[in-house]
Amino acid sequence: MDFTIGCTLRYQVEAPTPFVFNLEAARLPRQRIVSETLTTSPDLGQPDRFDAPESGNRFIRYVVPAGEFQIDYRAQIALDPLMLDPTGVTEIPGGSLPMEVLTYLNASRYCQSDRLNRFANRQFGGGGPTGHQRVTAICNWIRDNVDYQAGTSDALTSAYDTLGDRAGVCRDFAHLAITLCRAVGIPARYISAYAWQLSPPDFHAVFEAFLHGPGGGAWYLFDPTRMAALDGLVRIGAGRDAADVAFCSIYGGAQAQPPSVWINGPTPNPIRTTQAVSTQAP
Amino acid sequence: MDFTIGCTLRYQVEAPTPFVFNLEAARLPRQRIVSETLTTSPDLGQPDRFDAPESGNRFIRYVVPAGEFQIDYRAQIALDPLMLDPTGVTEIPGGSLPMEVLTYLNASRYCQSDRLNRFANRQFGGGGPTGHQRVTAICNWIRDNVDYQAGTSDALTSAYDTLGDRAGVCRDFAHLAITLCRAVGIPARYISAYAWQLSPPDFHAVFEAFLHGPGGGAWYLFDPTRMAALDGLVRIGAGRDAADVAFCSIYGGAQAQPPSVWINGPTPNPIRTTQAVSTQAP
Amino acid sequence: MDFTIGCTLRYQVEAPTPFVFNLEAARLPRQRIVSETLTTSPDLGQPDRFDAPESGNRFIRYVVPAGEFQIDYRAQIALDPLMLDPTGVTEIPGGSLPMEVLTYLNASRYCQSDRLNRFANRQFGGGGPTGHQRVTAICNWIRDNVDYQAGTSDALTSAYDTLGDRAGVCRDFAHLAITLCRAVGIPARYISAYAWQLSPPDFHAVFEAFLHGPGGGAWYLFDPTRMAALDGLVRIGAGRDAADVAFCSIYGGAQAQPPSVWINGPTPNPIRTTQAVSTQAP
Amino acid sequence: MDFTIGCTLRYQVEAPTPFVFNLEAARLPRQRIVSETLTTSPDLGQPDRFDAPESGNRFIRYVVPAGEFQIDYRAQIALDPLMLDPTGVTEIPGGSLPMEVLTYLNASRYCQSDRLNRFANRQFGGGGPTGHQRVTAICNWIRDNVDYQAGTSDALTSAYDTLGDRAGVCRDFAHLAITLCRAVGIPARYISAYAWQLSPPDFHAVFEAFLHGPGGGAWYLFDPTRMAALDGLVRIGAGRDAADVAFCSIYGGAQAQPPSVWINGPTPNPIRTTQAVSTQAP
Repeated sequence: MDFTIGCTLRYQVEAPTPFVFNLEAARLPRQRIVSETLTTSPDLGQPDRFDAPESGNRFIRYVVPAGEFQIDYRAQIALDPLMLDPTGVTEIPGGSLPMEVLTYLNASRYCQSDRLNRFANRQFGGGGPTGHQRVTAICNWIRDNVDYQAGTSDALTSAYDTLGDRAGVCRDFAHLAITLCRAVGIPARYISAYAWQLSPPDFHAVFEAFLHGPGGGAWYLFDPTRMAALDGLVRIGAGRDAADVAFCSIYGGAQAQPPSVWINGPTPNPIRTTQAVSTQAP
Repeated sequence: MDFTIGCTLRYQVEAPTPFVFNLEAARLPRQRIVSETLTTSPDLGQPDRFDAPESGNRFIRYVVPAGEFQIDYRAQIALDPLMLDPTGVTEIPGGSLPMEVLTYLNASRYCQSDRLNRFANRQFGGGGPTGHQRVTAICNWIRDNVDYQAGTSDALTSAYDTLGDRAGVCRDFAHLAITLCRAVGIPARYISAYAWQLSPPDFHAVFEAFLHGPGGGAWYLFDPTRMAALDGLVRIGAGRDAADVAFCSIYGGAQAQPPSVWINGPTPNPIRTTQAVSTQAP
Repeated sequence: MDFTIGCTLRYQVEAPTPFVFNLEAARLPRQRIVSETLTTSPDLGQPDRFDAPESGNRFIRYVVPAGEFQIDYRAQIALDPLMLDPTGVTEIPGGSLPMEVLTYLNASRYCQSDRLNRFANRQFGGGGPTGHQRVTAICNWIRDNVDYQAGTSDALTSAYDTLGDRAGVCRDFAHLAITLCRAVGIPARYISAYAWQLSPPDFHAVFEAFLHGPGGGAWYLFDPTRMAALDGLVRIGAGRDAADVAFCSIYGGAQAQPPSVWINGPTPNPIRTTQAVSTQAP
Repeated sequence: MDFTIGCTLRYQVEAPTPFVFNLEAARLPRQRIVSETLTTSPDLGQPDRFDAPESGNRFIRYVVPAGEFQIDYRAQIALDPLMLDPTGVTEIPGGSLPMEVLTYLNASRYCQSDRLNRFANRQFGGGGPTGHQRVTAICNWIRDNVDYQAGTSDALTSAYDTLGDRAGVCRDFAHLAITLCRAVGIPARYISAYAWQLSPPDFHAVFEAFLHGPGGGAWYLFDPTRMAALDGLVRIGAGRDAADVAFCSIYGGAQAQPPSVWINGPTPNPIRTTQAVSTQAP
């Protein structure tokens, strides 16, 4: 399936200031960039670039002069997600996980899996479903027990807060799901994405869990908000939590306007599948 | 300078359980492993190994059978730390930092630099010293305002807690210092180490800040507890915070005995230097 | 039913220090003090006394000289709790509650009913049982979702912590139950007591909710730990939370030994009743 | 000095809802109500009234029908605050404090004096000034170390948060000051007031500390924001913290408009005195 995606970001900058963006589509086994363009106004030439070795996140840096600044990204993406019967997607015991994945069992800034360990294991521990179905059970519990409501959380809100406050947005839903997965021994990481038919349009936050499918271990996508089709997600970045995949980090002072984000989908449309979905599996 | 280091860890394991250790000395430009041995009882053969690409941390994994388990590590280390006049070690603006270092400006589980941003900039922001001397000012403030006291914190304690509670141990001192550095724009990371003459002997926690010396950007060592000589630290692991460099992670149930940790130093002895110290600079 | 109760508390005091105790049985409509004695060693004579007008709590104060200090209390208590069919014990709407009771709807130190408002109303709000049965549903939920486990909490632990951590002791169970009651509009307060057959013997913490029975509004007893018989509780103090009813507050430095607390019950024994119980109703 | 004060509050009510207000001026030894009127639209007749025995707070309750609701209060107040040389206003040791005042040493919802005990005693403990001057030192520290900035805190913000976040409004400044006073052994309580020349006009939050002046123990006023003249404060309510003195508590659903609050002062004007001020001392 082919998607066209893009965003326009605008800033008022007070003095020369470094900006780091992570808004370009990721290069993945099943997510191919057909074409893409990145332009800035004023034209600042080629940015510094860094592709993180672990996640593949594509970071770019400009030192932006004082004044108005605009960055435009657009791309055509060919997405071919693997879609599987979830009952065949199982858990991998700690002794068999690839060792480079173990870091996604660690607690992180917004995902205090150390502190929520007892709750997670009481609620989703032994006896219930395992594998892909256990992660789905976690997503279902969040949907049933947390209100999706703009304005109830902010950039400092963590999974521990969300479990107590029972309200949040996509970022908070992802953080809580990641936290509960890690606490029961399933590696999980935060994903930022362009999401087909997300309403209102914006950058979206979902997550991936590392599970075992027919071809071996791979990262599988989940959206605990149920707002996006899993086969309509164009990945931007992956990280331990939102601290790793900000679409824009400003090392100084600037005024931002709300981002303009868009995605146009294919025919036939993505579907709200209940299958196991991965853009990383071979 | 040559050091001999080692540790013995003992566990009582209930059922076959994966253990991941990070207790071997790191391989660094100025920290050379002359020899080392790793043995377990019962003998479990060669462990799974993973050297993290970003940090160089050396992770090893065993699946330990039920019963008593003991692991012994000992090594001879040649340490040749760079020691410099701190007034020549300066800060690097965000636009010039190596992009792979930017991740060490992010908030992490125990280092909420996003939340302590205002305090850090009020206390250590513009007007005071910069570079190595600014990091020293942060360490001095912590020593003057936080009590070093065993039993006042636990594995869940974060820098935000320590700022309020004003008590902690080496781990907490490092977390708070890292947090304050990041909040004022200096990349900082958590270091676990064997520390010469640490009393009582144990694994020690210090931190590194990324600064600019004569040869370019490099990680410089700091110990806000002032309990160890900076030129007597044998590095084990580096990470965003303690979540990344546990000396032992157990994916299951086991009883641990207190670790036995030791280090023997050279003649002449390490000194409690006030110079800038790096084991990573070329 | 007649009970004999008592406690012995021992301290090592460094310098003359004020101690405030709240360990004597309360005087209530259905809890009569047949006899009581209070002695100290050394003999410090009559203490300062203050019976709080709102709660009836009996506070006593000594300025204790340096050295060893011991206080002994023993009393004979006639308890005649009202016991009712809980289905007839109903809620009182906010417009009809006695105004002096409204303070027990406020958030307090360990009972953040403001913050847990959304959770409480999602879980125990409209549609479920009301009145005494709603409070019982709250107690049942806590028993089913929180582990009673010594050592998992401390003097700083609050209801918000306990909801996240899912473990605690009697004090934490009471705090969480009080918080959830207040958040759904039921006044609730913390009760310290001598508890018949509590194992191991200690001061116990339970709570009261203000509900409407046959004789009008009154405070009804609940024990979310299910460790004590409600008709075997000899009340000491009532307050918003544990901050108000410490059995001993020391305004200075002293070493305390573990308290010795005892209660001997009547024949026939108290029962683990499921009836609504009040020692305050007329 | 004579003041005229008043406020107008407007609500849109969805269904019959109990409202409790605490907006009338308190009756104090040195604050006399010359005249006052309270009217509502629609006219709901005489409200339920409750004057709290401990604080003297004047609570009134209406059950408001669906529709628009407005309440207007206006009063003429004769204020004759005691004003003293602060060097003569001293601390009272715990063994001599009136026992009914001890409750104001307890931790409360927004004033975690138990948790900030170590910080308070490190910063304001032995060796520094005592009595009125110690409380002034606490106020000065807050003014120097916390930013007064609207929008940085909300109704859930506590003193522990404010110490870490270093920003807040009058309510947060009062909570932090109260917390630090209690932690060093000085009883302190939260005061809501009409404040002469407060800009912008609004209800104000200050606090009182219990100290010893020429006539014995009394409550003395402090404003850590330095925004109001202490001899221009018309007291409304006193409590442990903001949880006790909300100007309006709604037991149900309603939309509130921003309150309109005003105060007209005397000639000569109140002054920004540095004297010790009490409206409670005889």
